[in-house]
Amino acid sequence: MTRTRPVVVVVDAETPGNVGTIARAMKNFGLTDLKLVNPPELDPDGEAYGFAGHAREDVLPNAEEVTFDEVVERYHTVGCTAITGEDSRRHVRFPFKTPAKLAESLQGVDAETALVFGREGRGLDNEELGRLDEVCSIPASDDYPVLNLGQAGTILMYELRDSTVDETQLPDVERERADEADIERFHDFVADFLDASGYKDVKREKTLRLVRRLVGRAHPTDREIHTLLGVFRRATGQLEHRRALLDEYDEPDRW
Amino acid sequence: MTRTRPVVVVVDAETPGNVGTIARAMKNFGLTDLKLVNPPELDPDGEAYGFAGHAREDVLPNAEEVTFDEVVERYHTVGCTAITGEDSRRHVRFPFKTPAKLAESLQGVDAETALVFGREGRGLDNEELGRLDEVCSIPASDDYPVLNLGQAGTILMYELRDSTVDETQLPDVERERADEADIERFHDFVADFLDASGYKDVKREKTLRLVRRLVGRAHPTDREIHTLLGVFRRATGQLEHRRALLDEYDEPDRW
Repeated sequence: MTRTRPVVVVVDAETPGNVGTIARAMKNFGLTDLKLVNPPELDPDGEAYGFAGHAREDVLPNAEEVTFDEVVERYHTVGCTAITGEDSRRHVRFPFKTPAKLAESLQGVDAETALVFGREGRGLDNEELGRLDEVCSIPASDDYPVLNLGQAGTILMYELRDSTVDETQLPDVERERADEADIERFHDFVADFLDASGYKDVKREKTLRLVRRLVGRAHPTDREIHTLLGVFRRATGQLEHRRALLDEYDEPDRW
Repeated sequence: MTRTRPVVVVVDAETPGNVGTIARAMKNFGLTDLKLVNPPELDPDGEAYGFAGHAREDVLPNAEEVTFDEVVERYHTVGCTAITGEDSRRHVRFPFKTPAKLAESLQGVDAETALVFGREGRGLDNEELGRLDEVCSIPASDDYPVLNLGQAGTILMYELRDSTVDETQLPDVERERADEADIERFHDFVADFLDASGYKDVKREKTLRLVRRLVGRAHPTDREIHTLLGVFRRATGQLEHRRALLDEYDEPDRW
C-alpha cells in the first residue's frame, strides 16, 4: 500500500484530552500526520499526552501547527459534522457522505486528503465547511446525534482502516474450520453414542439432524471437533461397557 | 424494531471518564442499558458525568451495578478484546468475530445480548473471557492494536447501529440527484458556451465528453445544475453579444 494516507486536522480544539484521543486513534489505525489549527497548549505532563497512549511517542510530539488556509490550499478536504443539510437548498452541508461511503470513495483515488474536525462545542462553522471539498457525517441516533470530538474521529479512522492499516493484529482467519471429514466423523460418533445409550429409534434421525444443524451453523474448529470426538468416543465406550456388564450379570432388563 | 437491544457491561473500570464516554456512545447509538461490575465512584460533579454529554440525563444515572456471575447467567455474552488467539490451540480468544461480523450475526438473532468490556489496563482476563460466549476484536494496526476502552466501546456500538438506532439524524438521501433532463440541458448549454467562445472544432467533442464524465461522477444536485445552467446561459449570452458588437463595428477579424 503506497497510497498517500490522509492527514488529520483539528480546528480550535478546546481540550487537550481530545487531541490525545485523536492521536491515539490515529496510531491505532495507521495514520501519522496530525495538523492542529489554533491548538490548546499540549503539556507533556498533561491530558493530551495522558490520553494518547503510545501515540505520545510519535503522532502527538510530531503534530504540526497550521492555519486553516494552508489546509484548504494543500489538501482535498473532508469536513466532519454531525449536522447535515436536509436537501440541496442548503449546500454548505449537503450532499454529504457517511464514513463508509467516504472510505469507499477515497479507496479509488490517489489524493492528499485531510480529515477536518471542528471544535468540541460547535464543530465546524458554515464558513469553514463552505471552504472544504466534501462533507462527512456519522449516522447516529436522531435523539442525540452529536458525538464527542475524540469519538467521532475514532469512528472515522476506524472506517478508513482498509486503506490505512497495512497489517492488523488479527490472524488471517477469524476461525479455522475443521476438516469436513472430521466433522462427518463427529456425526458418526454422535450416532454411535445415541445407539449405545439406547436412544429411541423414532427420535434418532430427528436428533441427529438437529445436531447437524447446530454444528453446521457454528463452523467448529479443528480443536473443537477433536475434543468432542474424544468426549463422545469415551462416553460411547463406557455406555457399551455398562451394557456388557449387565449382560455379564445377566440383567438385560436393566439395559 | 422491537428486537431486544444489547446491554453494555464494563468490568472493573478504573477511570470514571471512560464510563462517561461509553454512556455517551450508548446514547449516540440508541442503547440505554449500562451495567457496571465493580465500578469506580461516579460523582455527579466528576469526569463520568462530564464525559457523558446528554447521557448524563439517563444512561449514566440509570446504570446498574451487577456481578460478573449475574451477567454470565442472564445474557448471551460477547467479550471484547484487542488480543485474540492465533489459532484454535488457544480457544479462550479464538475463534473471534470482528465488529462488522458481530453486527451481521446478531441481526438475525433475538437474544438478550451483553457486550462486555474489560478494565483499561489489561482488558478482560482469560478466566473472564473463558466464561463468555463469544469473542469480538476490532481490527487495528499491528503496531499498536490496543484501543482505549471508551474508543473501543464507541466503535462497537457504531457498528451495531443498524439494529439499535431507529432513526438517524441524517436525511433519507445523502444527495438528491438532479433530473436527467436538466443534466442533459446542462450539457447542451456547455456546448453552446463552447461554440459562443469560438472553441476549436477539433477539440469540441473531446472537451464535451470530458465534462460529461466529470459531471457524471459527481451526481450533481438539482441546485447545483440549476445554478450552473444560469452561469452558462449568462456567459453564452455575453459571448454572443461580444461577437455582435464586433460585427456592428465591422471588426470580424477580432472574433
